[in-house]
Amino acid sequence: MRIALDAMGGDEAPLKIVEGGLQALKESGNRFELVLVGRKQEVEGEISRLSGSGLNYSIVDATEVIKMDETPNTALKQKRDSSIVVGAYLHKERKVDAFVSAGNTGAFMAASTLILGRVKGVGRPAVGTPLPTVTGTCFLIDSGANSDSRPHHIVEFGVMASIFVREIMKKEDPTVGLLNIGEEASKGNELAQASYPLLEKSGLNFIGNIEGRDILAGKADVVLCDGFVGNIVLKFAESILPTLRSRFKLFASGNVLRMVQAGLMAKTLKKVLKGFSYEAYGGAPLLGVNGVSIIGHGSSSVLAVKNMVFRAEEMVNHNIGKLIENSISKIEGKAV
Amino acid sequence: MRIALDAMGGDEAPLKIVEGGLQALKESGNRFELVLVGRKQEVEGEISRLSGSGLNYSIVDATEVIKMDETPNTALKQKRDSSIVVGAYLHKERKVDAFVSAGNTGAFMAASTLILGRVKGVGRPAVGTPLPTVTGTCFLIDSGANSDSRPHHIVEFGVMASIFVREIMKKEDPTVGLLNIGEEASKGNELAQASYPLLEKSGLNFIGNIEGRDILAGKADVVLCDGFVGNIVLKFAESILPTLRSRFKLFASGNVLRMVQAGLMAKTLKKVLKGFSYEAYGGAPLLGVNGVSIIGHGSSSVLAVKNMVFRAEEMVNHNIGKLIENSISKIEGKAV
Repeated sequence: MRIALDAMGGDEAPLKIVEGGLQALKESGNRFELVLVGRKQEVEGEISRLSGSGLNYSIVDATEVIKMDETPNTALKQKRDSSIVVGAYLHKERKVDAFVSAGNTGAFMAASTLILGRVKGVGRPAVGTPLPTVTGTCFLIDSGANSDSRPHHIVEFGVMASIFVREIMKKEDPTVGLLNIGEEASKGNELAQASYPLLEKSGLNFIGNIEGRDILAGKADVVLCDGFVGNIVLKFAESILPTLRSRFKLFASGNVLRMVQAGLMAKTLKKVLKGFSYEAYGGAPLLGVNGVSIIGHGSSSVLAVKNMVFRAEEMVNHNIGKLIENSISKIEGKAV
Repeated sequence: MRIALDAMGGDEAPLKIVEGGLQALKESGNRFELVLVGRKQEVEGEISRLSGSGLNYSIVDATEVIKMDETPNTALKQKRDSSIVVGAYLHKERKVDAFVSAGNTGAFMAASTLILGRVKGVGRPAVGTPLPTVTGTCFLIDSGANSDSRPHHIVEFGVMASIFVREIMKKEDPTVGLLNIGEEASKGNELAQASYPLLEKSGLNFIGNIEGRDILAGKADVVLCDGFVGNIVLKFAESILPTLRSRFKLFASGNVLRMVQAGLMAKTLKKVLKGFSYEAYGGAPLLGVNGVSIIGHGSSSVLAVKNMVFRAEEMVNHNIGKLIENSISKIEGKAV
C-alpha cells in the first residue's frame, strides 16, 4: 500500500508533517510506503534532521505550495505543480492508494473532487468530522464540502457516514440523527422537512431529528446536515477550547494567586477534557470521492498527522469507496 | 408602566417566576406594575408564601397552561385561556406595555407574532439572543424564529439588532457580521451570497463575513444568520456548560482524590466562566413585533426572571419598536 502525504500542507509544514508521517512508518514497522509530496529539498532536509533513513518512504517533487489562506479555485488553476494538485493526480493514476493533507482545506476538497471524481451514484462528496461527545464520539457530516444541498444529498451523506462509522469507528448499526430545530418531522427549514421522509425509508438507523444541544450529548452517532450548517457548528465547536483558554488567561492575568489556581487546574482540566482534542481522530475523510482523501486540521500536530496516516491505511483496507458504491446503488431507487 | 409576566411559563413555574417578578418590584421600589398572568389561586398562593403584600402587582386569571413540550400551533388553538394567549391579548389591547415569558418558546413567539402583529415595514420578527464571548457579549439574530429567510430579512435582522444592541446593550455603532463559512463575499450558501451585497449598502456597520469560530471570539457585536442556523448554534452553545459538568462528573466518579480535585476546581471554574451563564442577560427579545416580547429560557432562575422584567422595562423606555419602524422605513428602498 502507498499513502501520499502532503508534506507542505499545515501551519507547521513541512517539519511536523514529515515527522508525523515518519512516526507512522516507524510505529507500523514500514507496513506501507509513505509518499511525501512537496518541495524535494525541503522534505529531504527534514527527513535527514529526523534521522529517517531506513524508513519506507519516497518523495515526489512538487515545486509549488498552496498557502492556507489562498482562494481554492484560483490557487488550483495557478499552481498546477503544488503538492495538493500533484498528490491528487498521483492518487487518480493509482500510483498511491490514499492522499492525506493538512493544507488548504478548500483547495484539497476541490482537487480531490475534481481530479479523482465521484464514487458511482454519489451526487456530492461530503466531509465527515468526528466530534467528541460526553461519552464518546459522533460524526458530523457534511461539515463543509457543500452548501445548499438537496434532500437526496442528505440521504447520501447518511449512507456514506454510516459505512464509515461502522467500518472505521467500529460502531455497529450507527444511529443517524437529522440536525434540526425541533423534534417533530414537520420542523425546520425546507431542506430538513424534505429530508426527513427520505431518511425514514432509507434503511438507515434513522432516529429522527436532533437539536444543537444533542450533538455534544451524544444523542446520535451520525449527525446529518448541510455543509453550511455543519461547517459553522464545527468551527464553533473548535473555538470552545481556545475560548476556555483565553478566559483562563484573563482570569489569571496580573494576580499571582489566581495564576497558581489556574495552573493547578490546567492539568486536571486536561484530564477532564480528554478526547476533546481533534488530534486523536485521524482527520476528516472526504467521503464519496474515488479514493481515500483525508483532510487534516491546519494546526495538525505530529500526533494528528500520524493518526491521519493510520486512518488512511484503515480506509484503504476496508475499501470504503466500494462499500459506499454498493450501498448507494441499493438506496438510490428508494430515496431519490 | 405595566409589565405582564407569564406566571405559568418555565420549568419551575409558578414559584420561581413569581419570585423573580416580585424581586424586580422590590428592587425597583414598585417603579412599575407587574401583571402576573396565570392560574389566579396558584399565583396568589405563591405571593402569600413570598410575603408579596404591599408590592405593586396585579393578577390576571388564565385557567390553562401550555406545557413546555406542547406543539405550539395546536396548543395556541386549543388553549385560548392559557397564560400565553391571555397575556398576548392584554399586550395587544395595550393593557400592558410588555410581556415576558419563560414558557413554551414556540407558542410564545407564535402568539406574539400573530396577536400583536408586526412593526410596520418588518417582514419577519426575529429572536435575538445575547451570547457570551471571550471579552464581552454578542447578539445572535435570528436565533430561531424563522427558517428559510430571504436576503432582505437578514438585513432587517441586522437593523433591528443594531438598534437593540445600541440602545439596550449600550454599544455605540455595533459591528455586524454575517455568519458564513468563509471570509470572501462569494462564500457560502445562496442566502449568504445574496445577503452580503445588501448588507454592504444597508448603512449598518457591516464588517463582512464571520465564521463559526469568530462568535465566541467576539469578532462582531451582531451575528447575523437565518433562524435555522442560529437556533442550532444557540442550542449547541447552551450545551457546552452542561457537557463540561457531565465530563467533570465522569472524571470524579468513584475516585475520592478526583472528587476533591473537581470540587476545588468548580469554584475557580465558575469565576473563570463568569458571564457564561444566560441568567444575567435578561432574556431574548422577539424584535419586530408590535410590542415588547421577551423570551426566557425554560430553566429560568429567579435572577433570570428578575433581569427579564427589568429588560422589558428598559425596552419600553427606549421605545425600541418605534426606533425599528423608523430605521426600517429608511433602509427599505436601499436594501430590498
